[in-house]
Amino acid sequence: MRPTPGPIAILGLGLMGGSLGLALRDAGIGPIVGFDPDSGAAAAALKLHAVTDVAATVPDAVAGAAVVFVAAPLGRVPEVVRQALAAAPPGSVVSDLGSAKRMVVDALGGDERARFIGGHPICGGERAGIGGARADLFRGATWFLTPGAEARPDLYERAYAVISATGARPAAIDADVHDRLMALVSHVPHVLAAALINQAAATAPGGREALRSAGPSFDDLTRVAGANPPLWADILLANRDAVLDALADFRGRLEQVEAAITAGDRAGVTAFVADAADGRRRLRAGRDAAGSGGEPWEIVVGIPDRPGAVSEITTALGHGHINIDDLALRPGPPGGVGEFVVRVAGADAAEAAVGLITALGLRAEAERA
Amino acid sequence: MRPTPGPIAILGLGLMGGSLGLALRDAGIGPIVGFDPDSGAAAAALKLHAVTDVAATVPDAVAGAAVVFVAAPLGRVPEVVRQALAAAPPGSVVSDLGSAKRMVVDALGGDERARFIGGHPICGGERAGIGGARADLFRGATWFLTPGAEARPDLYERAYAVISATGARPAAIDADVHDRLMALVSHVPHVLAAALINQAAATAPGGREALRSAGPSFDDLTRVAGANPPLWADILLANRDAVLDALADFRGRLEQVEAAITAGDRAGVTAFVADAADGRRRLRAGRDAAGSGGEPWEIVVGIPDRPGAVSEITTALGHGHINIDDLALRPGPPGGVGEFVVRVAGADAAEAAVGLITALGLRAEAERA
Repeated sequence: MRPTPGPIAILGLGLMGGSLGLALRDAGIGPIVGFDPDSGAAAAALKLHAVTDVAATVPDAVAGAAVVFVAAPLGRVPEVVRQALAAAPPGSVVSDLGSAKRMVVDALGGDERARFIGGHPICGGERAGIGGARADLFRGATWFLTPGAEARPDLYERAYAVISATGARPAAIDADVHDRLMALVSHVPHVLAAALINQAAATAPGGREALRSAGPSFDDLTRVAGANPPLWADILLANRDAVLDALADFRGRLEQVEAAITAGDRAGVTAFVADAADGRRRLRAGRDAAGSGGEPWEIVVGIPDRPGAVSEITTALGHGHINIDDLALRPGPPGGVGEFVVRVAGADAAEAAVGLITALGLRAEAERA
Repeated sequence: MRPTPGPIAILGLGLMGGSLGLALRDAGIGPIVGFDPDSGAAAAALKLHAVTDVAATVPDAVAGAAVVFVAAPLGRVPEVVRQALAAAPPGSVVSDLGSAKRMVVDALGGDERARFIGGHPICGGERAGIGGARADLFRGATWFLTPGAEARPDLYERAYAVISATGARPAAIDADVHDRLMALVSHVPHVLAAALINQAAATAPGGREALRSAGPSFDDLTRVAGANPPLWADILLANRDAVLDALADFRGRLEQVEAAITAGDRAGVTAFVADAADGRRRLRAGRDAAGSGGEPWEIVVGIPDRPGAVSEITTALGHGHINIDDLALRPGPPGGVGEFVVRVAGADAAEAAVGLITALGLRAEAERA
């Protein structure tokens, strides 16, 4: 189902950009032109064969690209995305790998949004920089895509195909939903871990340092704390609104527990911990279910030839936790109805997908692939 | 240096009590009489040889004991400690294994405190109940002891010897210091983990469940959440004051970070994360140093024959992070000066110990053992 995407440009050759180059090379996709303001990183990427060639500027790197990936530090992503959109061919698509998505879209004009598909692979390496790059970094990882309503369906399809080639599982969601999810499961947890270790480090009851009494569970809880301070400052600031909302909600939850403890409300405190036990069970169940698979089904959707429809469909499936194993676009005549084909695993997923797509006012039919 | 302790009683034959019995049996200490209100647990402990015999009541169990360990659920510890103190021989010592220490002492009268040495081993098992009991549960673990000023030195020495025989590292600290330390490194972390998973479980931006987007670091952060709700409710309520203080302080730390994020204060947010990086380094450094050891040194302290002196010495060393590898009491004539001998590892620890003991107004000399 996958078209040949054409030449790739990767802007930023650290852990993420370098790993992307290695993964695409292994998938036989290229040529890949890389750019990094640090010429040492660029040379290392070339030596590792993570890129086919390096360019001295962003415009040079993207000049012949069909797909551009911006893997710059988060704070610089909007600026580099705009540079890439301006310099790359009119038929090219630009994506990124940043941890916050709304702030990138907000920086773009309407024309720019047609060719931009935000992305965020949920994975990380042991070591930052090109030295930590690995071809299998993305294998099996969720790679969120946040196609806006203005995004061109053919460009979305192309970005999807390239990202699938890395072994990641693309999942489309709304940019705001992405940012709020990440605040809850990643950004706020990092803040809590950092605040927890800072509190223990700053406190020495009776002269005995609290940190020296920490056991294995404290170690687990604070493992993520303190990694890459400038990067994490950028993430927290880039996702400011969602992070602040989630932190305020979290403090409210603490105040509720404190009130129950103050009141000696044993039933209330027990219920609070028991809720967490339920949450842990759901967390594990969700993980088990994610790998369950099933027979391949295809859902064929009749779509009007307008931007937005493909984004609506894939985002609805992403919000509904339905993994898209593959997708393809079969355009109709100009102004007419085309077909959008989505492949999912299992009859249940196919049925749920048809329900979600029908709810959007579109016709969908499922059949065994 | 260790006296033969005499008969042991263990009240409560779950994971902790059962493991204690197995560890003491392996160390050749006994006989061990066990009691559990659940006769099935008692029978299982007997079958495992975690106890030599079982008794039908607390008074029967402690009737001939030299050392009594109360391993009951935390909420029942004060009551069972008082029963044991009333029924055990006048020359016996009673200890416990609970996660909060001040609340036990507060439940005791002055006379009772002379024979009570609070304890808390910092370890846990995969599985609650006698079925999870293991002889090596305490090996290498810190076992906090909280001897009060009224505690009899000879009884402290006896409890210390029995606990050392399990392979744990006893460390004396003040009961309030213990409770505040545990609030910081265990109780508040549990609350945070539970609140974090409850928040994610309760939130579904755009209909997409936050829990379904959680990655490995979220899993690490919430692993402790939800274990044994009634036990954890008891712990949080038993250590109420310290937990509430630490939670209020923690919320204050969150508010500071929120203010920095709101203000777009990149330097402030970066410093917050960088502080956590320092804390993580100190956490790892403290752990590495703990196992470094050194040549054995003995510190001989001249002590007046009064309760309190031994507790003061061992607590000062505990607060100063000096591990006591062994200790012995050589009483002087009635009303006169006795000797208290403490063994530590390395010349540096010996020098530091002499400094701490001298600061208490006592004479101390260190020599290579």
